[in-house]
Amino acid sequence: MLDGLLTEEEGMIRDSFRTYCQEKLMPRIIMANRHERKHWNKMGELGVLGPTIQGYGCAGASYVAYGLIAREVERVHSGYRSVMSVQSSLVMHPINAYGTEEQKEKWLPRLARGEILGCFGLTEPNHGSDPAGMETKAKYNPSSSTFTISGAKTWITNSPVADIAVVWAKCEDGRIRGFILERGMKGLATPKIEGKFSLRASATGMILMDEVEVPQENMLPNVSGLAGPFGCLNNARYGIAWGALGAAEFCFHAARQYTLDRIQFGVPLARNQLMQKKMADMLTEITIGLQSCLALGRLIDNKKAAPEMISMLKRNSCGKSLDIARQARDMLGGNGIADEYHIIRHVMNLEAVNTYEGTHDIHALILGRAITGLQSFTVEK
Amino acid sequence: MLDGLLTEEEGMIRDSFRTYCQEKLMPRIIMANRHERKHWNKMGELGVLGPTIQGYGCAGASYVAYGLIAREVERVHSGYRSVMSVQSSLVMHPINAYGTEEQKEKWLPRLARGEILGCFGLTEPNHGSDPAGMETKAKYNPSSSTFTISGAKTWITNSPVADIAVVWAKCEDGRIRGFILERGMKGLATPKIEGKFSLRASATGMILMDEVEVPQENMLPNVSGLAGPFGCLNNARYGIAWGALGAAEFCFHAARQYTLDRIQFGVPLARNQLMQKKMADMLTEITIGLQSCLALGRLIDNKKAAPEMISMLKRNSCGKSLDIARQARDMLGGNGIADEYHIIRHVMNLEAVNTYEGTHDIHALILGRAITGLQSFTVEK
Amino acid sequence: MLDGLLTEEEGMIRDSFRTYCQEKLMPRIIMANRHERKHWNKMGELGVLGPTIQGYGCAGASYVAYGLIAREVERVHSGYRSVMSVQSSLVMHPINAYGTEEQKEKWLPRLARGEILGCFGLTEPNHGSDPAGMETKAKYNPSSSTFTISGAKTWITNSPVADIAVVWAKCEDGRIRGFILERGMKGLATPKIEGKFSLRASATGMILMDEVEVPQENMLPNVSGLAGPFGCLNNARYGIAWGALGAAEFCFHAARQYTLDRIQFGVPLARNQLMQKKMADMLTEITIGLQSCLALGRLIDNKKAAPEMISMLKRNSCGKSLDIARQARDMLGGNGIADEYHIIRHVMNLEAVNTYEGTHDIHALILGRAITGLQSFTVEK
Amino acid sequence: MLDGLLTEEEGMIRDSFRTYCQEKLMPRIIMANRHERKHWNKMGELGVLGPTIQGYGCAGASYVAYGLIAREVERVHSGYRSVMSVQSSLVMHPINAYGTEEQKEKWLPRLARGEILGCFGLTEPNHGSDPAGMETKAKYNPSSSTFTISGAKTWITNSPVADIAVVWAKCEDGRIRGFILERGMKGLATPKIEGKFSLRASATGMILMDEVEVPQENMLPNVSGLAGPFGCLNNARYGIAWGALGAAEFCFHAARQYTLDRIQFGVPLARNQLMQKKMADMLTEITIGLQSCLALGRLIDNKKAAPEMISMLKRNSCGKSLDIARQARDMLGGNGIADEYHIIRHVMNLEAVNTYEGTHDIHALILGRAITGLQSFTVEK
Repeated sequence: MLDGLLTEEEGMIRDSFRTYCQEKLMPRIIMANRHERKHWNKMGELGVLGPTIQGYGCAGASYVAYGLIAREVERVHSGYRSVMSVQSSLVMHPINAYGTEEQKEKWLPRLARGEILGCFGLTEPNHGSDPAGMETKAKYNPSSSTFTISGAKTWITNSPVADIAVVWAKCEDGRIRGFILERGMKGLATPKIEGKFSLRASATGMILMDEVEVPQENMLPNVSGLAGPFGCLNNARYGIAWGALGAAEFCFHAARQYTLDRIQFGVPLARNQLMQKKMADMLTEITIGLQSCLALGRLIDNKKAAPEMISMLKRNSCGKSLDIARQARDMLGGNGIADEYHIIRHVMNLEAVNTYEGTHDIHALILGRAITGLQSFTVEK
Repeated sequence: MLDGLLTEEEGMIRDSFRTYCQEKLMPRIIMANRHERKHWNKMGELGVLGPTIQGYGCAGASYVAYGLIAREVERVHSGYRSVMSVQSSLVMHPINAYGTEEQKEKWLPRLARGEILGCFGLTEPNHGSDPAGMETKAKYNPSSSTFTISGAKTWITNSPVADIAVVWAKCEDGRIRGFILERGMKGLATPKIEGKFSLRASATGMILMDEVEVPQENMLPNVSGLAGPFGCLNNARYGIAWGALGAAEFCFHAARQYTLDRIQFGVPLARNQLMQKKMADMLTEITIGLQSCLALGRLIDNKKAAPEMISMLKRNSCGKSLDIARQARDMLGGNGIADEYHIIRHVMNLEAVNTYEGTHDIHALILGRAITGLQSFTVEK
Repeated sequence: MLDGLLTEEEGMIRDSFRTYCQEKLMPRIIMANRHERKHWNKMGELGVLGPTIQGYGCAGASYVAYGLIAREVERVHSGYRSVMSVQSSLVMHPINAYGTEEQKEKWLPRLARGEILGCFGLTEPNHGSDPAGMETKAKYNPSSSTFTISGAKTWITNSPVADIAVVWAKCEDGRIRGFILERGMKGLATPKIEGKFSLRASATGMILMDEVEVPQENMLPNVSGLAGPFGCLNNARYGIAWGALGAAEFCFHAARQYTLDRIQFGVPLARNQLMQKKMADMLTEITIGLQSCLALGRLIDNKKAAPEMISMLKRNSCGKSLDIARQARDMLGGNGIADEYHIIRHVMNLEAVNTYEGTHDIHALILGRAITGLQSFTVEK
Repeated sequence: MLDGLLTEEEGMIRDSFRTYCQEKLMPRIIMANRHERKHWNKMGELGVLGPTIQGYGCAGASYVAYGLIAREVERVHSGYRSVMSVQSSLVMHPINAYGTEEQKEKWLPRLARGEILGCFGLTEPNHGSDPAGMETKAKYNPSSSTFTISGAKTWITNSPVADIAVVWAKCEDGRIRGFILERGMKGLATPKIEGKFSLRASATGMILMDEVEVPQENMLPNVSGLAGPFGCLNNARYGIAWGALGAAEFCFHAARQYTLDRIQFGVPLARNQLMQKKMADMLTEITIGLQSCLALGRLIDNKKAAPEMISMLKRNSCGKSLDIARQARDMLGGNGIADEYHIIRHVMNLEAVNTYEGTHDIHALILGRAITGLQSFTVEK
């Protein structure tokens, strides 16, 4: 149902990027996932890093186009889309939205070309769903015009391989501000998290800061408080809402083809009512999910969207896509646990995608608060 | 999320009809349902009968507008929307699409004004989901230029009170054709079905035909085969897809208000996480369902829709709305079984809405066939 | 799977009561439900009122036998089982457990014979799930050795027709105590609740008390605090756990027979995979639910049961039975909304059964507290 | 609820084996799973291989005891339980049930001591759910009194490391018979399947047979037809029904402890209603599942069980345990994808357990056939 409602340009962007993803990324993904190797190829040339930013070497495309791109790359692997989301929404977006002209000119073109890679440090070991409890501190040193930052961030996509990190820390005035940290700064370490069984083709790690000294010109001056990181997360969540459905689409198509090809009891598996019902459910959720993402993209492009709409669709797309991937895996029977069929990989990835940038339950409570006007996160009235 | 994507005219149609529904229909609905009384008020003046038909006193509105109207009336009662769907999609539509100019001029203006009421006879006692097995026969009499029709139709909305019936029968050439039967014809009876616990505010009955003699000019000449009734059903199902979500919206809003007003353990029920999660789920499904209906309406208005899209959304809206209504009933605790809170009535109605014009499972198999190219309705390969 | 694990005596009790239920109760149930008429026949002769009580004309049967009886009667109608539960667990049990020898001798034999009917007043209009907030007051008058009771109870099964009511009220010392109120006492009214679409074959109403004067000998002396009514409710919930599955069994068997009898596309509906999967799910839940009830009954008979086990099975049986009944209704298609097939009636009844004596969610929180040691009912830590 | 219903001996068997599993197996499981290494330790000394067999060095324990053992070992890892199930039910059981006295004396004591390991060859690349389509052939050579066996078996637990294989092949008379193949026989190869993301701590592979010559004395003489392998599978499925719930119990307890320990918004995660509801659902399904396994074990021990009961509980335990493990993973948020918390490993394992020895859907159709008397596996009437 989507094709009839896209503009010609949107269709072209989607088609060219789909070709790239299927021809360049897809062939190498099994080995990358099996051995946790990173095959991050520069997407800069395709103009898909920070695609909605105007100027600074960025494409200046619409949010609908951004969504279509996220969907194509996650059709291959959620880890690749995660890298793209982090670079675009969590690193380039805050620099563009909250940074100085100098910061933009210094960082955005290189990030857009994929010359350097960024990561985003908000979540802490003891504070997953409640970032307001942040323990990372930034102390200003008037003599050197620098900030001394100490603290730990965890579950950071890209951190072990990133060149820069946008890190959020609590300043002495109690307000949260963003800082650009660069690899090589003294006291900065980015150890990798071992033994994860999700997003194995992208690196995840910590950001450990032991009195890292950061020049004042690396602070993002135009925002303070949680509005800063939350603005980034909303931007990223919009891309996830599209992307997760791309993974679901892959699983749907793979399961459909498998059940058409596999003969049991003399007919294709796809001839069975139980299989057809699963596929009808899957395609329905994919279709209505994508239509809603398209509507949301149009609203964002027209400045009519509210953050709760993004929460709603991030939650819906991730939860439904995880269910779809699980159903698809089930449809493959024993073969469904082998990575050569790709679906088990998507199942494992979507577990993380359903969890990060706001779990399914946390977004339920965000929506619940918007609906009722009453918060139910904490035990306080 | 819907408001930002409607045209100004669409918004106006919705608002004026919403006012009518809430002020005229809603106040009388409890007693109508409790005692199975029919309070069918002429909607003709509002231009909402056969609203998409051009000319013949009809409004000539868009399919998006038709959907918005169905949603408003079902917000009050699914039985009222059923009556409107039958009149518009199953009686006026086939006369307009398959009838002669004379038939159109004779019947459409009066049906549009609500002067007369119609019903639609397809389903038979032994053939619910497989109309191809139809047993009703039409035999042509060359001498009198009439057809003699015999057979039985059941679960017919409006039949006990309708003035005319569009009845489908198998002719001697084995093809199915449509006929306009008029109350008072000899051999025609329309007994009411007693003891139904769904759609109690609208009448449901049978159409019993014992050698009813129907003039040739009452046959719809421009269609033969199942394409005729299926075209009507597709038209009606599109309206149901919107309408069911209207009922779900009522339940959502009623449950929200109830839980905000009712205090338990010192706080409003709505303060509880378990309640907020239910509401988040409900609003999400309503929102993505409506967005998809809107997209489908735009595609129909642009002649880009396929029948499977309608099956998909009829099935999705009905199944999800039934779930939402059940959740809402649960949220009201003991009060949820009392009709004064309206929700139990919607629960019972949506059981029928989820079943008629293609059950949830039958639409799954229709979609499954479209997805796989393999039918799984019957045991034949 | 149950038969192989029952004693011979248990099997005999079940069989004889099943015969009574099917031959005496079942034939009249449709009209009783359609017109909200009460056909309550004395079950006293069968020894199924207060069946676990020793002496006072009661049967002194095991808890397993009590469960088997509840299952048989609810196979016919949840309203009939409700009346039996109220009489046995909520009226006779507190008199037996908390009453004086005089109270037992005065009331139990007549209640056991079904000569008089009782009801149980705990729930108040503003306090459904939190009885601790009770507003009904009992004030002692030393001069007359009576209590003056004022307050309102609602959603009381049997109240419009009961001869006596066991009512819980807060005394001047802040403790909750139980009182036996008798029809005809001044200031006592028991209006019926109209417009309910559940348990229509049993009467539900309020107990309104405007300074009702109750003799001291009508107070139950051997309990105070919420332990009194909670002990009764636990007793009743055990019976509900069995009974709800009886209703589910009826629905399963009726849907099975319907789909075997009805031919669509040339084969019985039951030949379809989608139907068989529903039946497999239904029978599985019925089987494992009954096995668990049997195990619980054995533990109660051996004094090894904990109240949380009863919460668990009340919740499980009711929630699952409601789902099963809904599935069964769906399997009947259009006929599923007609009361002559009985299933829609069970669907509506189980909505109430799933709600009363602790909603599905409240029992989740009771279990959650038992599991974690942390209460999450209120906003206090 | 289980403790009160076990005999003292059953409790002792469970406790001593639980100690072994927790102290010996659990500490090494993470590395075994991460690197797909096998740490199969001889369980022979504990008497848990072929535990229900009388004589031949086997324990001769009850089926209830067998179930309790399976539950304890799967609490650690489904792959370990799989190895035990294969050895006990699929290798030792057919030799004991269908073999000659010589075969029993030759193989059972060494298998019981764990000196040698066996595997079971039934599933073929083109025949997962329909073993009747078997393509592996056995041809008798009268001159040498041997059978020549050719064919391929796949998804065989243990095959790459097993010393013997019980392989099922179609003989010239069209009947299926069982053969004991020994590692080292000419033409026999057992390649490992790479890239599986489930049961990584046990080896899975193929059995490739290119004209393997097998002496007549290695044929199991006392069974022919599918009754042979199906008898083995029923035996194994009973153990799986218990075992899967053991994995679910681990996940439940781990998630409970995690949410008690982790503080968010100032209170333990376990203080949240959304968490408590998940735990209530999990514990309910575990409890009623275990009660039903216990009842089934008692029926098997008393020779009163039917194969459909085993299908029902294999399906129920596996499907529910997979759901429980997924819920538990979700409750751990980001940490849920790290193998050090174990749950993601159980999730991946249970995908296979829910699939092998009859998928969830195949068992639904087995039950459906038992309920209706109509098969719906194939398109034939």
